[in-house]
Amino acid sequence: MGTRPGGVVNTRLPQQDRSRATRERLIASTIDVLASDGWAAATVSVIAERAGVSRGAAQHHFPTRESLVIATLEQTFDELTTRAADGEETLPEGPGRVEAVVTRAVEVYTGTQFKALLQVWSAAASDPALRETILPMERKFARAAHRLTMQSLAGGSTDPAVHRLVQATLDMARGLGLADTLSDDSARRKQVIATWSEVLAAALN
Amino acid sequence: MGTRPGGVVNTRLPQQDRSRATRERLIASTIDVLASDGWAAATVSVIAERAGVSRGAAQHHFPTRESLVIATLEQTFDELTTRAADGEETLPEGPGRVEAVVTRAVEVYTGTQFKALLQVWSAAASDPALRETILPMERKFARAAHRLTMQSLAGGSTDPAVHRLVQATLDMARGLGLADTLSDDSARRKQVIATWSEVLAAALN
Repeated sequence: MGTRPGGVVNTRLPQQDRSRATRERLIASTIDVLASDGWAAATVSVIAERAGVSRGAAQHHFPTRESLVIATLEQTFDELTTRAADGEETLPEGPGRVEAVVTRAVEVYTGTQFKALLQVWSAAASDPALRETILPMERKFARAAHRLTMQSLAGGSTDPAVHRLVQATLDMARGLGLADTLSDDSARRKQVIATWSEVLAAALN
Repeated sequence: MGTRPGGVVNTRLPQQDRSRATRERLIASTIDVLASDGWAAATVSVIAERAGVSRGAAQHHFPTRESLVIATLEQTFDELTTRAADGEETLPEGPGRVEAVVTRAVEVYTGTQFKALLQVWSAAASDPALRETILPMERKFARAAHRLTMQSLAGGSTDPAVHRLVQATLDMARGLGLADTLSDDSARRKQVIATWSEVLAAALN
């Protein structure tokens, strides 16, 4: 958002656009606060302050922390799925393809968004209501991730062994993501991805 | 602890033994509270109450939550390592061996102890002091888990590719553990273990 000559832009944005922009800022701030400060710190007022949004405006959009967290999860899962799908066209053909697909899968689990998700996940482990709410979202995302990875690695294969190898790959990616939360694990991760990809490529052939 | 004829046993236990028993109960209770109620709930007084230990006695052993959590992590990592090492002798030789080793590795990450560790891990993500304390413990445990799995799968092999395959297997095990925190994932997990074990056995040969 910049300023146009002679005018203040923000207040000229149609109400609907301003409302959407506020919502986006709150969601981005939720990711940020969860990933850097953890679940306990991520209250609507802290998130609003970090977003530069008044507490009243934040509560107008999201009356409870749960509603904000759910909106954040929905958008995050959508973004991660879209990003992986958009990357489809840039995947190389030939010998480097498997490693490129595995790297893409691991990237899903090693960014700021995954660190934020992990905080929600961890809170849900002891909060049955939150768990019931996020389980179907998580399952839908897991299915999408699996479908995309299957498509990229094995086209329309219906071989159950291939299906499960792709599951194992996503489990490995999730485990690498968890290992990365305490300290930067990127050097080791790169080697593990290369080794896994070699074995996976051989198994797929 | 039972009662002997004509006497109250508890108060006859030497002071040192009673003290050790109290400590053990507090540590067991910490695992229990963390895994079922999460990090925020796991205060010294809640843990003491669940253990049936007075708050004063608990604070005598563990003046702060941090000291209790560290003692719990130390003991948990020791137990997990010992359990895996003790299982060494019962591993089958021949074709079922790889799957037995992979299953053992996955079991480390799917029990109550891992669910408790995950809560500490997740809290440490936004607590630099806690992170600095648990990182060396976690690294020591990761090295022990790797060494044991290497030993069981590949004897004294020093092949770097085997080394990394074992790392990848432990990452997959960790990812399977994370997938199990929201809902029972055991049926899918069994299939993933079987599929990966087949691929791993072929790669090791």
